[in-house]
Amino acid sequence: MTDFFAGIDKVRFDANATDDLSYRHYDAEEVIMGKRMEDHLRFAVAWWHSFAWPGGDPFGGQTFERPWFGETMELAKLKADVAFEMFEILGQPYYCFHDADIRPEGADFAENTARLEEITDYIGDKMKAGGPKLLWGTANLFSHRRYMSGAATNPDPDVFAFAAATVKTCIDATHKLGGENYVLWGGREGYETLLNTDLKREREQAGRFLCMVVEYAKKIGFDGAILIEPKPQEPTKHQYDYDVATVYGFLKDFGLEGEVKMNLEQGHAILAGHSFEHELAMARSLGIFGSIDMNRNDYQSGWDTDQFPDNVPEVARAYYEVLMAGGFTTGGTNFDAKLRRQSLDPVDLIAAHVGAMDVCARGLKAAAAMIEGGELEAARNARYAGWDAQGDLLTSDLGSIAARVQAQGINPDPVSGRQERLENILNRYV
Amino acid sequence: MTDFFAGIDKVRFDANATDDLSYRHYDAEEVIMGKRMEDHLRFAVAWWHSFAWPGGDPFGGQTFERPWFGETMELAKLKADVAFEMFEILGQPYYCFHDADIRPEGADFAENTARLEEITDYIGDKMKAGGPKLLWGTANLFSHRRYMSGAATNPDPDVFAFAAATVKTCIDATHKLGGENYVLWGGREGYETLLNTDLKREREQAGRFLCMVVEYAKKIGFDGAILIEPKPQEPTKHQYDYDVATVYGFLKDFGLEGEVKMNLEQGHAILAGHSFEHELAMARSLGIFGSIDMNRNDYQSGWDTDQFPDNVPEVARAYYEVLMAGGFTTGGTNFDAKLRRQSLDPVDLIAAHVGAMDVCARGLKAAAAMIEGGELEAARNARYAGWDAQGDLLTSDLGSIAARVQAQGINPDPVSGRQERLENILNRYV
Amino acid sequence: MTDFFAGIDKVRFDANATDDLSYRHYDAEEVIMGKRMEDHLRFAVAWWHSFAWPGGDPFGGQTFERPWFGETMELAKLKADVAFEMFEILGQPYYCFHDADIRPEGADFAENTARLEEITDYIGDKMKAGGPKLLWGTANLFSHRRYMSGAATNPDPDVFAFAAATVKTCIDATHKLGGENYVLWGGREGYETLLNTDLKREREQAGRFLCMVVEYAKKIGFDGAILIEPKPQEPTKHQYDYDVATVYGFLKDFGLEGEVKMNLEQGHAILAGHSFEHELAMARSLGIFGSIDMNRNDYQSGWDTDQFPDNVPEVARAYYEVLMAGGFTTGGTNFDAKLRRQSLDPVDLIAAHVGAMDVCARGLKAAAAMIEGGELEAARNARYAGWDAQGDLLTSDLGSIAARVQAQGINPDPVSGRQERLENILNRYV
Amino acid sequence: MTDFFAGIDKVRFDANATDDLSYRHYDAEEVIMGKRMEDHLRFAVAWWHSFAWPGGDPFGGQTFERPWFGETMELAKLKADVAFEMFEILGQPYYCFHDADIRPEGADFAENTARLEEITDYIGDKMKAGGPKLLWGTANLFSHRRYMSGAATNPDPDVFAFAAATVKTCIDATHKLGGENYVLWGGREGYETLLNTDLKREREQAGRFLCMVVEYAKKIGFDGAILIEPKPQEPTKHQYDYDVATVYGFLKDFGLEGEVKMNLEQGHAILAGHSFEHELAMARSLGIFGSIDMNRNDYQSGWDTDQFPDNVPEVARAYYEVLMAGGFTTGGTNFDAKLRRQSLDPVDLIAAHVGAMDVCARGLKAAAAMIEGGELEAARNARYAGWDAQGDLLTSDLGSIAARVQAQGINPDPVSGRQERLENILNRYV
Repeated sequence: MTDFFAGIDKVRFDANATDDLSYRHYDAEEVIMGKRMEDHLRFAVAWWHSFAWPGGDPFGGQTFERPWFGETMELAKLKADVAFEMFEILGQPYYCFHDADIRPEGADFAENTARLEEITDYIGDKMKAGGPKLLWGTANLFSHRRYMSGAATNPDPDVFAFAAATVKTCIDATHKLGGENYVLWGGREGYETLLNTDLKREREQAGRFLCMVVEYAKKIGFDGAILIEPKPQEPTKHQYDYDVATVYGFLKDFGLEGEVKMNLEQGHAILAGHSFEHELAMARSLGIFGSIDMNRNDYQSGWDTDQFPDNVPEVARAYYEVLMAGGFTTGGTNFDAKLRRQSLDPVDLIAAHVGAMDVCARGLKAAAAMIEGGELEAARNARYAGWDAQGDLLTSDLGSIAARVQAQGINPDPVSGRQERLENILNRYV
Repeated sequence: MTDFFAGIDKVRFDANATDDLSYRHYDAEEVIMGKRMEDHLRFAVAWWHSFAWPGGDPFGGQTFERPWFGETMELAKLKADVAFEMFEILGQPYYCFHDADIRPEGADFAENTARLEEITDYIGDKMKAGGPKLLWGTANLFSHRRYMSGAATNPDPDVFAFAAATVKTCIDATHKLGGENYVLWGGREGYETLLNTDLKREREQAGRFLCMVVEYAKKIGFDGAILIEPKPQEPTKHQYDYDVATVYGFLKDFGLEGEVKMNLEQGHAILAGHSFEHELAMARSLGIFGSIDMNRNDYQSGWDTDQFPDNVPEVARAYYEVLMAGGFTTGGTNFDAKLRRQSLDPVDLIAAHVGAMDVCARGLKAAAAMIEGGELEAARNARYAGWDAQGDLLTSDLGSIAARVQAQGINPDPVSGRQERLENILNRYV
Repeated sequence: MTDFFAGIDKVRFDANATDDLSYRHYDAEEVIMGKRMEDHLRFAVAWWHSFAWPGGDPFGGQTFERPWFGETMELAKLKADVAFEMFEILGQPYYCFHDADIRPEGADFAENTARLEEITDYIGDKMKAGGPKLLWGTANLFSHRRYMSGAATNPDPDVFAFAAATVKTCIDATHKLGGENYVLWGGREGYETLLNTDLKREREQAGRFLCMVVEYAKKIGFDGAILIEPKPQEPTKHQYDYDVATVYGFLKDFGLEGEVKMNLEQGHAILAGHSFEHELAMARSLGIFGSIDMNRNDYQSGWDTDQFPDNVPEVARAYYEVLMAGGFTTGGTNFDAKLRRQSLDPVDLIAAHVGAMDVCARGLKAAAAMIEGGELEAARNARYAGWDAQGDLLTSDLGSIAARVQAQGINPDPVSGRQERLENILNRYV
Repeated sequence: MTDFFAGIDKVRFDANATDDLSYRHYDAEEVIMGKRMEDHLRFAVAWWHSFAWPGGDPFGGQTFERPWFGETMELAKLKADVAFEMFEILGQPYYCFHDADIRPEGADFAENTARLEEITDYIGDKMKAGGPKLLWGTANLFSHRRYMSGAATNPDPDVFAFAAATVKTCIDATHKLGGENYVLWGGREGYETLLNTDLKREREQAGRFLCMVVEYAKKIGFDGAILIEPKPQEPTKHQYDYDVATVYGFLKDFGLEGEVKMNLEQGHAILAGHSFEHELAMARSLGIFGSIDMNRNDYQSGWDTDQFPDNVPEVARAYYEVLMAGGFTTGGTNFDAKLRRQSLDPVDLIAAHVGAMDVCARGLKAAAAMIEGGELEAARNARYAGWDAQGDLLTSDLGSIAARVQAQGINPDPVSGRQERLENILNRYV
């Protein structure tokens, strides 16, 4: 045992608790719509924000002082020890990682691979002793300077190769640890200026890269989902996986719309000019919903703030879409959220997760109640009911329709959209 | 002759002019890259902004006082008379219209159709007497209250039918007048709240609607292009044709990617979080570039400001993409731009077009010079040159690539992206 | 009695109601922190959005069909009749108006004045018969085309004069009806382009105008508050009363910081890049807090959406600041919110207000509980406690402080800002 | 001589140059409006971006490999050597620095001070040997973790003291080196959450801090200008020095409006929702214009991109305001601009400055020609000419004005704002 979380006990559910470190709303065992809350929410802790991020921002350096910061395997193992101590305190069922979160950067690909194998063996042993499962693994193809101009979309084929080789090792590691999904976030797959960029060529590179990922996963028998995480920009000026609709067109082009799903993040939705529920609903309607990165973005800040969620009505709208999509299968709720850089204390890290899990639990319960109440879906269905009798319109043609409108004098009156009344219904539940 | 533009002569090219109403840069006859400038730019005046818009905004009513404002056919004809007088003054080769711009709203579909036929006959006669050709026609499916909840995507099938019938008449009218394109802008094809919206169903409706348009155009022998104009929002909170990449996925879904092209607007690109040149380059890379709505959006204002273009370097970047896409075929440069509502005078309308045409001419000439200079494309090609020898990477697989990286110790060093130097090159031309 | 709201009964408080048209949370008589809820919230209905707005937007015309729409005094009285019927249904204690909301535009100043007197007599009679009081009156100095280039800041002194004369009549009307505040929103006091604008001169005009307002109010014995409502832009590209901090500098320049307070709107705060609670806290810290325009802005939309509030946690943060500022004195909660243009039915208008009043009631109760709980203020005070012993620093000088830091080796360690823990505390209450 | 810029010669003016490293437009000796171009523009290189920034961003680490990176005084001197070699190449007349750019961080205040003295002696010696003068110095009060919760506005008085002591040493250093201005940018003077912030108290601390700065500068005989650099946010969620208008109110409150001027940055103006020319015009109209940080912000990116300027028409509008304000006195054009992190090569650093200086030279010349042409100011003056005869309105009162409007039947017609025509005039010059 390290002493990093000394004095902090396992967090327990107590609806009446008045202290800082109890779940007031998240009761893993509570059954909602026929399923345990834990099985609905499938919470995961993110290794990068919780254990690897030093607290820097573009105008200031490290604020966090963690005993495991440094570039040795020994410190990487200490970091893993502390991580599993936090998992024990929180009791969440999953975690997620990038390769670069769990092992120090080596001198070359061979050393990176060896270190990844060593640390995943170490983590695997800890998992056997209890603790959470792996929701997903991923490769960090954006922090190292070799990726400054992209990974799969790099103008240099050697970088493409290095990235492909790295992803191969990360899929292997994810598979070894029983990961249920493999995620790709193309942080540098975009451009800083069109002046030096060949969009068509880079898109082709990205498409082939993704095909190889799908093929390799199948080849080794990895039966988890392959997930893409859209983001419109930052770090690049423009990122290819802008949003759900953009990625959908990309998947269609490479015949991957049945192979790849979406890992959706609230903050990325906001930066793309959407709401989180929009991106979820869009993925649902296109049949490519997979998993979520739960956080929130500051509406005032034009960059990714990755804050812990704190607004229950917004979270309820998100889980409403998740439940309407059938809930998570391989996916889950990953807290891709970081402490503010002024939140220095170990207890801040625990309290942030406890608060966020409670917010999600409240959101889920409200969403389930909305569905069980049924008013919203009833109203939605009623609004389109006219189509039941006129579905043939969709198989007709302009000429016939024009003739029908002329002959029958069709001249429709508009009908109230009832938005405020629907918002009132929603507010009964949140 | 009306006296609306009394005292304003035909605008002529004079590079040394010091008055307000001469072209200093737009010389229709000047040959650029082997083509007359007029044939490159293919300017069109927009009927709606120039003749139908009263100068209102969300906080104030009409400021313009035009003798043709009103809801009679007689006034519609007066409006057409003045329009052709302006075309005579400007000498631009094209114009564009919505049905609602050129005829008053009737009591029902039959009356709308009759009026559209009458006014397009009237306009057709004027065209026979000289004057510009029709770049494109379109149906206004967003202003009338019947469309408040969408046209093709309306929950009421009668509205779908009314819209479809109306589009039929507008394609007919466009065809009759020799229009070279037909445009669809889905201003109300979107939603105000997800709470009352079925995304999947509405998308299906929109897809079928577009298929019918394509089929009808073919059936009547209209061989112009069918163009979609993307916009992310406004008037709706969220519009389905968000941007080029979104529309591309939609076209793929309905098998229309070879049938429909893009009509791109600077202001809409900005509202979607892109640059104009991004949208143009994206359409080029996907093979769906068609035409442009030239205007500019105020970067400070979060709504569509539809201002006349005034920034030559930005316009040059846009025409660079147009020229790299092979230039316009059926498309052109439509001024989807309106006077500020304080610009009350007839001369403001002429001067705004003259200034904009000069800005475009300067942009085109700079873009052509950049291409002829060749430095930008040479630098772009050099950046990707490594792929010439390693194209096999794209047909390989992750396992083989990893083995190669390991065996050869591939460890690439990053190479300068040279952004500032490329910007300097561009600045030699603008 | 008109039949506009036929079938809709007076809205009553019933915590367990399951119908659409009861207050579940707003109980006027409930005592919170020693004051009746009605006296805390001081709700007002806005005449413009509820009775004058036709449902148009920049891309579409009128959707609402109201029997009182038209430009006669008779219809203006019908509108007032319906308004008081709605007030009777809602039972809110206040209303607000612009002159242009309650009377049709006349041919000149004299006719406008006569009509304003006639309609305010009519409304005054209705008030004597019961019904709400007047929270504030204001002049519409932005809709008529004469104001297209500003009112107080117009380049034409005749427009300045017309605006000043109009404000005089509106203060008179407000005073006559017992209004508790007079508001100025400078919708056109800004610019479209700097190219035609003299900032210094226009600022001077605005300052003098405001001084005259203050002087006139005093002269006639109006002892309500004079309030300015900041907004950064829209309709203009840039508005002089950008936000609280900007207006504060303006007031200081004209010696009015003790005479004029702020009427703050959520939507305007968002457009200025702030949160609502920021603007409230800023006004509180500068001693110029007055009243609020309660609505919400869509975070995705770059224009003023004026929606009814629906997010309880956000509203709670706002009322927290209101309560910390000592609560409203002359001010109140004006619903500067409009139905979505698709919400056509009379019942939509009632339901929207009922829902919003309940959201505000929940927000107020949560805010009061947070204050009574005391954890937030205790944490805030503790954070600054070090200053209790070192307040002399603020009266020292750089040289002495440098000597002290050097001599004492002052080298402070940072302390956690505890943001997530504070957010968790807040979430216990909302 | 180091070999960092090996092979790069001194940049010379040659209007017909076709190479990458000549000034085509910046001719220091050319006389514009009676003054040498060098004396108009007063270019300064920024030590931080050019020599201290490692190329990191929130998603990736260092990309630049500079031989002087490291934390020793020896490397700090090497950095200074290279800096002066670059100054020799560019021939610009000024440079700027933060303390943290030129010396490594010490263990405490005493060591920081000793190092600052040593390195400024070293730099001072280099200046005596030729090379540019110091435009301004400043203290970095935002990068070190001690400042994570603010410097002057920190809740911990020890941090206030440390910051005050540090500023004292930086003013001393600036004075010693003959600096012409001293700048304060309050990067951390703001908040992350209102929940832990006392706005009133922090504003008071900031006000007193600034007073001490002004007093100390006077005391030691520093007769340069004290400049504040506004920015709305980033790194904090909200920064107190939001924009010019906000700072003006702050200065008024502490009686400093005659003591402190503005250092304005294009990127910060954009982030605050303004144009650069707006901030310049506002400072001019308030009499507090001082100096500029010339760069540009990407309009698509919601964070400070600090790019080298590349758009001549925009830059011309900025210098138009500078010239109308009388031009720079102590201020100048500081390139607060950094290379893109992919621009790795030494030649990128030179080329970026060369391109930017040429863009500024073109902007200045265009602005001067606009002023000499006189059409814009003539049009502006004509627009307000009505006030010449009616200035008495501003000393009148509402009652008298209403009587006059009534008696004279004043009923003004609006007059065209001529925006497009003014934009056309501007485009003749750029």
